[in-house]
Amino acid sequence: MRRIHVIGIGAGDPDQLTLQAVRALKSTNVFFILDKGEVKSDLVRLRRDILDTHLPKGTYRLVEARDPERDRAAGGTAYSPAVGDWRSARADVCERLIAQELGEDESGAFLVWGDPSLYDSTLGILEEILDRGTVTFSYEVVPGISSVSALAARHRTGLNRVGRPVQITTGRRLADGFPEGADDVVVMLDAHQTFRRYADQDIDIYWGAYIGTPDEILVSGPLAEAAERIGRLRAEARERKGWIMDTYLLRRHPRDPGRPAE
Amino acid sequence: MRRIHVIGIGAGDPDQLTLQAVRALKSTNVFFILDKGEVKSDLVRLRRDILDTHLPKGTYRLVEARDPERDRAAGGTAYSPAVGDWRSARADVCERLIAQELGEDESGAFLVWGDPSLYDSTLGILEEILDRGTVTFSYEVVPGISSVSALAARHRTGLNRVGRPVQITTGRRLADGFPEGADDVVVMLDAHQTFRRYADQDIDIYWGAYIGTPDEILVSGPLAEAAERIGRLRAEARERKGWIMDTYLLRRHPRDPGRPAE
Ligand SMILES: C[S@@+](CC[C@H](N)C(=O)[O-])C[C@H]1O[C@@H](n2cnc3c(N)ncnc32)[C@H](O)[C@@H]1O
Ligand SMILES: C[S@@+](CC[C@H](N)C(=O)[O-])C[C@H]1O[C@@H](n2cnc3c(N)ncnc32)[C@H](O)[C@@H]1O
Repeated sequence: MRRIHVIGIGAGDPDQLTLQAVRALKSTNVFFILDKGEVKSDLVRLRRDILDTHLPKGTYRLVEARDPERDRAAGGTAYSPAVGDWRSARADVCERLIAQELGEDESGAFLVWGDPSLYDSTLGILEEILDRGTVTFSYEVVPGISSVSALAARHRTGLNRVGRPVQITTGRRLADGFPEGADDVVVMLDAHQTFRRYADQDIDIYWGAYIGTPDEILVSGPLAEAAERIGRLRAEARERKGWIMDTYLLRRHPRDPGRPAE
Repeated sequence: MRRIHVIGIGAGDPDQLTLQAVRALKSTNVFFILDKGEVKSDLVRLRRDILDTHLPKGTYRLVEARDPERDRAAGGTAYSPAVGDWRSARADVCERLIAQELGEDESGAFLVWGDPSLYDSTLGILEEILDRGTVTFSYEVVPGISSVSALAARHRTGLNRVGRPVQITTGRRLADGFPEGADDVVVMLDAHQTFRRYADQDIDIYWGAYIGTPDEILVSGPLAEAAERIGRLRAEARERKGWIMDTYLLRRHPRDPGRPAE
């Protein structure tokens, strides 16, 4: 039976691999890497560096395939209506990789950015492949440090306040309004600095880009004051590197006008 | 200047330490452990096992202190109105430990269960001590695998559905109603199996107790079917071990009656 490990590798700092992840790397025969094109080539390089650090050369195979393009025409970067088709197209690619590149008694691995449980399609893709029934395998998930945990650690803050909830959401959702029912909100996948819409409210922001990498940038403070600075730093960094990954926590103060005190 | 590391050690599996955490352990002179009494002595033992595994004996000091009792009379287990006082009482203990047990040029560490960013008071306590101004130190946070990530990995599921939010909350909050604005809800600190209140709704549950330890129990499925089984397993386990730690994800199906489809 083919075995597959879905391994969370942390969100940028190779030292944030767990011992369990290192063990899983060492038991892997074939690594599958989907290349998203030049824009994200730094991220592919980080995966290769992780392999080089932990595994002697020649003890594993690395199979790279081109990630099918998501239909960006359908409106923006993340989760366009075409996302279902895109997932199926990725499932096609992965199904072929597993069937052709992984021997019956071998162990394969997908290295997933951050933690596989947050805004990642790998588990859904594997389930889709198993549902199709053309190739069989067992699989296990190795959790990783998410960019959310890394953000909180770098800012030395909790995600929730005592006894209160925290919501994790996307930039697109935040554009529809500040989430109901949570005053602590972590935002991922935001290409549009959606936090700017709330700069007139009594909110603190804890923002981080390229967290855990040598390019890391951190800004925190009252949103009204920090928003512009973040916008500037973000634009400069994006220009310089050609891509950006950022995450932030918005902490709304409970007695904010327009929201009843608890 | 005294240095302190707040180190997330994962939620039960010692292999879920990160390489960064191991490095931080190795650079530590003094470990502080607050003992919560016999009930949680397994958890203290796991911390000691982690030290034994990674550090040669005699290379560090271990300082244990009795955690001040939280006033449970004030109503239940978690986050009673006495929580502020309790935090200050813990800050007193930690302040004394740091001032008396950590030399000016030494490095100390608190080993935090799971990830320090989720429902943990260590960072708040350190800030409170620094605010008092009687002892100074610098501190850094090393993120850890939370019980939430571990739960999702063991169930091989994402926390969020594609493009949708996830909320992390407490049992006490869930007792006030199913959270607004999120259909995927992770519940921690629930001593009362609050999920039972929602067993008449179209919800899937992914439940786990003692995740990552040899006693791990996992149950998933439609809540209506799983609720009773979880109740039984939970009561048996709690009886057997004297304590329980469990976490669960509730995944509500969007077309649930009483809630408009999106
Ligand atoms: C497709 S999601 C994957 C999240 C990943 N599974 C995790 O656990 O962090 C990509 C988003 O994660 C966030 N992200 C990932 N790595 C990051 C980093 N090093 N710094 C800041 N944000 C990061 C950004 O919000 C980005 O838009
Ligand atoms: C005070 S909170 C600390 C959470 C911790 N900082 C984390 O990241 O997991 C304690 C709660 O975490 C959850 N928890 C911690 N470890 C767990 C485990 N091994 N299995 C199941 N739940 C766990 C339970 O919900 C428990 O009530």
